[in-house]
Amino acid sequence: MTAESSLLRLGLSLPDAPAPVANYVPFVRAGALLVVSGQLPLAGGKLDPGFAGKVGGAVTPEAGAKAARLAAVNALAQARIALGSLDRVRRVVRLGGFINAAPGFTALPGVMNGASDLMVEIFGEAGRHARATVGVAELPLDAAVEIEAMFEVAD
Amino acid sequence: MTAESSLLRLGLSLPDAPAPVANYVPFVRAGALLVVSGQLPLAGGKLDPGFAGKVGGAVTPEAGAKAARLAAVNALAQARIALGSLDRVRRVVRLGGFINAAPGFTALPGVMNGASDLMVEIFGEAGRHARATVGVAELPLDAAVEIEAMFEVAD
Amino acid sequence: MTAESSLLRLGLSLPDAPAPVANYVPFVRAGALLVVSGQLPLAGGKLDPGFAGKVGGAVTPEAGAKAARLAAVNALAQARIALGSLDRVRRVVRLGGFINAAPGFTALPGVMNGASDLMVEIFGEAGRHARATVGVAELPLDAAVEIEAMFEVAD
Repeated sequence: MTAESSLLRLGLSLPDAPAPVANYVPFVRAGALLVVSGQLPLAGGKLDPGFAGKVGGAVTPEAGAKAARLAAVNALAQARIALGSLDRVRRVVRLGGFINAAPGFTALPGVMNGASDLMVEIFGEAGRHARATVGVAELPLDAAVEIEAMFEVAD
Repeated sequence: MTAESSLLRLGLSLPDAPAPVANYVPFVRAGALLVVSGQLPLAGGKLDPGFAGKVGGAVTPEAGAKAARLAAVNALAQARIALGSLDRVRRVVRLGGFINAAPGFTALPGVMNGASDLMVEIFGEAGRHARATVGVAELPLDAAVEIEAMFEVAD
Repeated sequence: MTAESSLLRLGLSLPDAPAPVANYVPFVRAGALLVVSGQLPLAGGKLDPGFAGKVGGAVTPEAGAKAARLAAVNALAQARIALGSLDRVRRVVRLGGFINAAPGFTALPGVMNGASDLMVEIFGEAGRHARATVGVAELPLDAAVEIEAMFEVAD
């Protein structure tokens, strides 16, 4: 079961890459590492309104986990553009999870699991990654979640 | 003086690895790099109650530094499980320090020194690392500190 | 147009490296990667008073972008000390941008562009990088911005 066939099996279509909006880029390759910029839960280039605001406040933890999954989908979309195929990913090395946390909301790992679970659905054991999950004060566009990723690339 | 002998000299025993609780893992090796997930000041698998809450609030800066040291001990425990021996660490490359900061508490570097000092006690010059220290809004379990680590591995 | 000649053209002089103040160092080289510690908008070893406080509060977004640029200048200064010349940088791989955000201030990417734009001014296409931008609760010295960097080094 390859990563690309897992995408098909899950019926998951990866979005087009958003155009770069500044002097940064969605990904950089350095040796065997592919570093993907922080991704938001955008769909069709816009923040899903259900994913705006603070998790534990306007955004429920369940919606927060869905936002994390969508941000992770966008990270995979960037990786596929970078590599041509997700089958070239040898390993998901690290996810950085930044949760826009309401005061006192500490159930951050469950939110981040929305991103982590996706990686294992797509890559199997190779999707199991190191991660750091923290609650931040603000995020761009008031997004509920931002996810950055580092992959190891085969060959 | 090797890292493992420094552990003995300091009388520091590394805890067992906590079992993974989700679709992420405590560490990933990618080439010469070992990336360790964000670690909390857990002892015996539980958050030390003295290390719960915001530094500069319920947690004093001194206790915060101890929390950072304990989180760093847990990062070393993960590295030893990954490598078999800390003597295989060539260099501590980077620590990421996330401090659960009370409003207006900016003395974050002193808190993070609890983690940084440990690395030099164990590894000597090879323990001197790059780091980023920031004050976050919330952390998992309301922990006072979270520390992630990147090591370079020999051979 | 090399990076060093771009510095000259821009009339940009890089500051001396601040002395390490703890058991961490301003940069670590690991293979082809150069990891630079989180940098603050310091000038002459002191926080510029215009760059103290929260962006969107005491610090305007425009001043925040200038603070990000200055922190990025300091990251370049560290890279030059590490490498002898910025012409040895093959690629700016990643910037991590931590913005000291006032409550409700979400225009974080514009602030971070102060750092990103500098990289492209100095390195051209090789300066285009992956980045993660988040709003944090507190920063050391109450700085408005903290920037960390990862570079790929030639040879």
